Amino acid sequence: MALLDQRALPLEDRWLECRNWHEVAEAIRNMTVRGAPAIGIAAAYGLVLAKEDFEAAAEGLAASRPTAVNLFHAINQMVNAHAAGRDLEQEAVSIEAKEAEMSARIGAFGADLVPQNATILTICNTGSLATAGIGTALGIIRTAYGQGKVKHVYACETRPRLQGLRLTAYELMKDGIPFSVIPDSAAASLFQRGAVDFVVAGADRIAANGDTANKIGTCMLAMLAHQMGVPMIIAAPSSTFDTSLATGAEIPIEEREESEITTIEGQRIAPLGCPVWNPAFDVTPGELLHAIVTERGVHRPPFNWGDH
Amino acid sequence: MALLDQRALPLEDRWLECRNWHEVAEAIRNMTVRGAPAIGIAAAYGLVLAKEDFEAAAEGLAASRPTAVNLFHAINQMVNAHAAGRDLEQEAVSIEAKEAEMSARIGAFGADLVPQNATILTICNTGSLATAGIGTALGIIRTAYGQGKVKHVYACETRPRLQGLRLTAYELMKDGIPFSVIPDSAAASLFQRGAVDFVVAGADRIAANGDTANKIGTCMLAMLAHQMGVPMIIAAPSSTFDTSLATGAEIPIEEREESEITTIEGQRIAPLGCPVWNPAFDVTPGELLHAIVTERGVHRPPFNWGDH
Repeated sequence: MALLDQRALPLEDRWLECRNWHEVAEAIRNMTVRGAPAIGIAAAYGLVLAKEDFEAAAEGLAASRPTAVNLFHAINQMVNAHAAGRDLEQEAVSIEAKEAEMSARIGAFGADLVPQNATILTICNTGSLATAGIGTALGIIRTAYGQGKVKHVYACETRPRLQGLRLTAYELMKDGIPFSVIPDSAAASLFQRGAVDFVVAGADRIAANGDTANKIGTCMLAMLAHQMGVPMIIAAPSSTFDTSLATGAEIPIEEREESEITTIEGQRIAPLGCPVWNPAFDVTPGELLHAIVTERGVHRPPFNWGDH
Repeated sequence: MALLDQRALPLEDRWLECRNWHEVAEAIRNMTVRGAPAIGIAAAYGLVLAKEDFEAAAEGLAASRPTAVNLFHAINQMVNAHAAGRDLEQEAVSIEAKEAEMSARIGAFGADLVPQNATILTICNTGSLATAGIGTALGIIRTAYGQGKVKHVYACETRPRLQGLRLTAYELMKDGIPFSVIPDSAAASLFQRGAVDFVVAGADRIAANGDTANKIGTCMLAMLAHQMGVPMIIAAPSSTFDTSLATGAEIPIEEREESEITTIEGQRIAPLGCPVWNPAFDVTPGELLHAIVTERGVHRPPFNWGDH
């Protein structure tokens, strides 16, 4: 299978050929492919490449990244298909197709919430590169733009890996949607200027009470939006839910290597030995959210998806 | 005069020799020297280098950067000294010495506000590199650390120019103060974890009502701190006040070039033509602040320094 190397975008379209599940697991780990739905789909195709070592492959792929639950849902579905003797490639294709359909439905439900002439703030990349189809949060933006409702998009650059600056900018430019990239820390200034009407982000795992793990910075946007009375929406397919967890406190948060902060494009920036805290995700309390939009519709707080 | 090139820190100690006021103005503009008090001091010494073109020099230096008011105060003091026929070098030395003394007093007043065993969050660089002496916000941290009150410091990396990662990290390592650098957007996660006891930042200009222009991201910290009930302090010498302005809405906010965001260390990151909004500063509403600490003492809201 071939993966578009998202680390090289937007300046280079480089494809990485994965010949076995080990290479797929490494591609997920090193973020050649990223985005919660996309890594689930990649893992499913990775299991198609597994032979006698199917169980080791399922375990190895599950160990690639800890936070996004879509990965584990996709692997479970493939394990069940394997046990039932179903065709694994067909199963992976079906997972991908279902994700694309869910994106389209999320886009439609979410666009209904976007006010006319809206300036929308978003973070990370939640578009075609992160999902199947049009994307989750970016799918809502795309759909609302198609309906003539979007005046401007502000995309947080999304340190440390700059998915907003690299990938969301790339997708928005392709679609001709008017936007500006901002440093993440400039979001507060936009709110203070009254320049944000609507905030939308994706998710990596949603607990039963609506607590949402997503890219580091999402909780910042939710807290700022809450304080300023601006609606903040999470867009996610049902593959992002983990209703076995009562609250977000139980979601494992991946901490990535210090070099993502201390070096940029291979060049050292920080003093040698500089200590860094680099959590890849944060957890937004469900009560700060205006709504969670899934392929099933618009869900309003208080959220309660579990049996807790 | 020689300026330590802060763009090369922390990896290289490069000194830039300025032979005339034009070179000093350019060093302020391109951020060889930065930090509100430091650029005021640099401009004062720049005027010592001026000869027959003193008035053009005063105008040229004042046009170098728009937001930090210390620059204009220092230039005004030099213009008055020039008009009175006083020795200009002595005047510049006196401005620098006074700034150093103010830093020491701010450190002492501010340290009294720091709780025991505190974890402190700060942004940008407000230390010896940005001021004279021990610094403003970093001066408070240094003083409190000397009193045994500081458990840990979190330094926002401070995109786009990464003064936290480059300069504050450099100063904290030199002093042996325990710290971690974080992506700016991770501050909210620290607040959510209850990991922040005290927030302190510097200032570039403070209006009569306490509205404070400072490095982009400061307003984010103030909004998060306010929401979570954590005290947020601004540390600034009286040279940072502009009581001719009733509110922060009148403070001119410098917007810097897009390349500060779209390229890093000379390497392009963003798609070609990617639009960017890059304000160097934001304005924190005075009412979000727990206190403003100057060399005169601790000032509590509501602030009212002017005749407005």
